[in-house]
Amino acid sequence: MSFSEHDTPHMTSALALAREALFLTSPNPRVGCVMVGADGAVLGSGHTQRAGEAHAEVMALRDAQAKNNDVKGATAYVTLEPCSHQGRTGPCCDALIHAGLARVVVAEGDPNPQVAGQGVARLRAAGMQVDVGLLGAEAHELNIGFFKRMTHGTPWVRMKVAASLDGQTALNNGVSQWITSHPARDDGHAWRARACAVLTGIGTVLEDDPQLDVRAVPTPRQPALVVMDSQLETPLNAKLFKPQRPVWIYCALDDMERRQALEAKGAQVVCLPNASGKVDLAAMLQDLGQKQINEVHVEAGHKLNGSLLREGLVDELLTYLAPKLMGQGRGMTNLGPFTTLDDAKALAFHEVTQIGPDLRILARLSR
Amino acid sequence: MSFSEHDTPHMTSALALAREALFLTSPNPRVGCVMVGADGAVLGSGHTQRAGEAHAEVMALRDAQAKNNDVKGATAYVTLEPCSHQGRTGPCCDALIHAGLARVVVAEGDPNPQVAGQGVARLRAAGMQVDVGLLGAEAHELNIGFFKRMTHGTPWVRMKVAASLDGQTALNNGVSQWITSHPARDDGHAWRARACAVLTGIGTVLEDDPQLDVRAVPTPRQPALVVMDSQLETPLNAKLFKPQRPVWIYCALDDMERRQALEAKGAQVVCLPNASGKVDLAAMLQDLGQKQINEVHVEAGHKLNGSLLREGLVDELLTYLAPKLMGQGRGMTNLGPFTTLDDAKALAFHEVTQIGPDLRILARLSR
Repeated sequence: MSFSEHDTPHMTSALALAREALFLTSPNPRVGCVMVGADGAVLGSGHTQRAGEAHAEVMALRDAQAKNNDVKGATAYVTLEPCSHQGRTGPCCDALIHAGLARVVVAEGDPNPQVAGQGVARLRAAGMQVDVGLLGAEAHELNIGFFKRMTHGTPWVRMKVAASLDGQTALNNGVSQWITSHPARDDGHAWRARACAVLTGIGTVLEDDPQLDVRAVPTPRQPALVVMDSQLETPLNAKLFKPQRPVWIYCALDDMERRQALEAKGAQVVCLPNASGKVDLAAMLQDLGQKQINEVHVEAGHKLNGSLLREGLVDELLTYLAPKLMGQGRGMTNLGPFTTLDDAKALAFHEVTQIGPDLRILARLSR
Repeated sequence: MSFSEHDTPHMTSALALAREALFLTSPNPRVGCVMVGADGAVLGSGHTQRAGEAHAEVMALRDAQAKNNDVKGATAYVTLEPCSHQGRTGPCCDALIHAGLARVVVAEGDPNPQVAGQGVARLRAAGMQVDVGLLGAEAHELNIGFFKRMTHGTPWVRMKVAASLDGQTALNNGVSQWITSHPARDDGHAWRARACAVLTGIGTVLEDDPQLDVRAVPTPRQPALVVMDSQLETPLNAKLFKPQRPVWIYCALDDMERRQALEAKGAQVVCLPNASGKVDLAAMLQDLGQKQINEVHVEAGHKLNGSLLREGLVDELLTYLAPKLMGQGRGMTNLGPFTTLDDAKALAFHEVTQIGPDLRILARLSR
């Protein structure tokens, strides 16, 4: 790696472009690209489009062309290793080589086994200077689910919880609307929007009848909805059928009649029982990986939250804490009761941000 | 008010000096003073000493004298309005006038009814330029308990809670050592050290037998210990009697024999019953105000925490959240169960800081 002080601002711009594609590109990664001339002038830039459409590098080349800028001898800043394989689009490496760029700066290597260093190798073989690793951590965060799926075959599981400072998610009588503020709830929709799928349990469906789609922020696509519903109890008139999006219902007991009724509502029913007659949650996540789901956004009750955590299937907690004390009520999870503190689920705080009057705390499960 | 850009760094220095006196001056406020010549050179500086000893202004004058610096025509930056009354020490106003300073910049007016603007008036009457209000909010935080006592007659009540991210302060079996990290527990001792008194309940005394003194950080004085002990059940061999400091036990049922035994251990027993046969907590805080207690640091169980909150007697929560999920256990308070979210105790987040792996969240009760 050899980066100069001039490189960082351009990669920062490329990351900002990738961030613009946060709600757009799934199941593809969000990638930004900036092309810069020897004099430091930005010649063209762009980000990945919807799956099947142009990648960031091609968008940047098109942008430069539209502006009559010659990119020969220029440097490209890309937030992910350019692809070397023929997917739904042609390999970006070839486009960069063909356009005559002199240098490519890459934030992070592509974990996709079909790329995995071959992009860099191909560019170098064509005589280009390639430097990898500038702002790699930032780039990784943007595509954390894509990386997880490419390396583990399963999605990144982010569990959203809204609670009071003393950890209560509802009063004893079930009342939970609203513990957190309007800005925090809007922020929660933005996290839904970046996910490939929102996941909930039949308890939440029966109790709250939520829609669980993205409404508070503009988005070009809706994430899929995934319901854990062991006994296929999802009501046919549930609000979750309203939005246009894939709905996948995982059950443990296949009932032909219920299945057909739900399928007539547009749902896909998948039967994946475990030994206890519940949905096999690990197998369900494997199945979501097969379905190219990168990030799963869990909004469920304390029982399903507890089951996912107990089975070690959660990567991250997205916690909103409201500045209030509720005393007794329903907790975040039904973990425990433990007899020793060593049994507590260990996390690491990743980021704390004030959202309106509330705190948003991102915490990651320790492995 | 007329402040120049040159004023702020000097007041910042004066605040830093006041902060050095955080564990020292109770029940007096922590005050810093910096004296600066016309050429911008610092001539002398200092902070308030122990109660009964020199105030910040006098320390700064002595410092200038020791350095052979002439303060005639200089500017004094003081974090609190100079006193105009004869207390345990002579009025600082007179010292400043006598020394011939030309200007005094004050961060915040003194709420002490014996001062309350008279200091400023006296300086102005002597022909000095006095400007009040530079970094007043920062100065206020340093002496928040002193201001509370001067304006309300009662101390600032800060409730410390150590919990998991999901709000549990102990397992169901009572185990709570240690939920938070070593750095967080040391930080908790620094907050004890700045308080005039640590307050706990008989439940905590009987269950944990804590010492509740300052050990993890160096301190020139120990805060008093206050125990809510309705039935005078404090064991005579409790560890709380070990440290040298005032111990005040508030009870609701006076028992001559128990009282005398506790007094023989060095405690002072105060009987302040309410109609329910418990300690009258509001009256107890009035009594602490009379005893010149500025800041009370509460470390108690969820019952006493709940009672203090229910009665509206808490000003601030000092919460340490550990990055772990404990599931079921003991909560922060026994508030509730509520039937509507409007009944929840409303707070406002004031400051969030990472302490080791934990989060320290300061939240203030909304009035």
